[in-house]
Amino acid sequence: MKSRKAIVLVSGGLDSTTCLAIAKSRGFEPYALTLSYGQRHHSELKASRRVVKKFGVKNHLELAVPLTSFGGSSLTDSKIKVPKSRSLKEMGKGIPSTYVPARNTIFLSLGMAWAEVVGAQDLFIGVNALDYSGYPDCRPEFIRAFEKLAKLATQKGVEGKWNFRIHTPLIRMTKAQIIQTGLKLGVNYGITHSCYDPVKVDRPCGRCDSCLLRAKGFSQLGVKDPLIK
Amino acid sequence: MKSRKAIVLVSGGLDSTTCLAIAKSRGFEPYALTLSYGQRHHSELKASRRVVKKFGVKNHLELAVPLTSFGGSSLTDSKIKVPKSRSLKEMGKGIPSTYVPARNTIFLSLGMAWAEVVGAQDLFIGVNALDYSGYPDCRPEFIRAFEKLAKLATQKGVEGKWNFRIHTPLIRMTKAQIIQTGLKLGVNYGITHSCYDPVKVDRPCGRCDSCLLRAKGFSQLGVKDPLIK
Repeated sequence: MKSRKAIVLVSGGLDSTTCLAIAKSRGFEPYALTLSYGQRHHSELKASRRVVKKFGVKNHLELAVPLTSFGGSSLTDSKIKVPKSRSLKEMGKGIPSTYVPARNTIFLSLGMAWAEVVGAQDLFIGVNALDYSGYPDCRPEFIRAFEKLAKLATQKGVEGKWNFRIHTPLIRMTKAQIIQTGLKLGVNYGITHSCYDPVKVDRPCGRCDSCLLRAKGFSQLGVKDPLIK
Repeated sequence: MKSRKAIVLVSGGLDSTTCLAIAKSRGFEPYALTLSYGQRHHSELKASRRVVKKFGVKNHLELAVPLTSFGGSSLTDSKIKVPKSRSLKEMGKGIPSTYVPARNTIFLSLGMAWAEVVGAQDLFIGVNALDYSGYPDCRPEFIRAFEKLAKLATQKGVEGKWNFRIHTPLIRMTKAQIIQTGLKLGVNYGITHSCYDPVKVDRPCGRCDSCLLRAKGFSQLGVKDPLIK
């Protein structure tokens, strides 16, 4: 099978790393895009570099987009607190302060730009609408609306040469299923980073939504998280 | 009438300056967003600062998004030439190299983020689908698709508290009509910048699409362009 280019959004977290493994297993040549947006958990950037190195990704672009200029989220404004120790039931209600306004729209726009330039028709994003924090821009209806927009927004789209497809292989998986899939594909989760509010730069806090959902996944699978010493 | 906040995308060009004047005349409190994306004509950034100052805009954000990392356009890759001396008929056919992949999707995403944070329901963008270079992301169907996306993409959208509206007051105007509208609102076009490929930093080349469309507008209106000495 001829290798096809695909943009893969890689944050350095558990989901995007699994997504990268899936893209590779499907025969795509990954163009990894990492966004440095002033995130509180900037240690995920280091994780993204470890991940793409491990996967032998030739094209890795780390792009700075200072979303701290807008703020409005506990991930981009240090004055807003990251919610801690929420139950899964609480996570199922409403949208927490870790929501970053328009983040995935911005990320997909940038990914689409790179895709059009390098001639990729495919983009992978590790969004998940099951074990997640209720972010609106992680849901299938958002992804489908963006695909529709892509056809109207780009030169290749209007010229009919492009069937831009956004792949969301994790969207309907539980966190345990995501980890299981990654482990089968040889992912080392010890080099990833999930915590929103790390202690001493990169030690997981263990209490933010991201840490709790990750712990739930490993626990349900009966596997030890290699990040937890 | 109570002043309402509106994000206004201000590049420093003729169209966005007119758009800002219209937003103000309609009673909006402008939040001006200027994108520094590595554009060849970076002197438009200086123009944007002159423009917002002239209009007494309190909130002006200049955001750096290095689209030169992608390239793929004569505006973001210095190795690609800006087309010159094209006739209006030529401009009507196809999309020239000055098209910047996904630019308006990226800009609208960022504008939407800021809008959600500051609580603005309105955004103004000076796109034009008549006297233009055929860019796909300047057309009404693109704008409507983005509005639909906004409802699904954001917290305020899904919570039903937000009717995000993208205003495109210039979209069906000729360049002459745009200039006439601006002049009525007191715009000084002498402080704007339109040229894609300026000579010696900020002297208009007079031959790129942007210069030619501007010249056509002033000529049809029978008014002298204050930029041309």
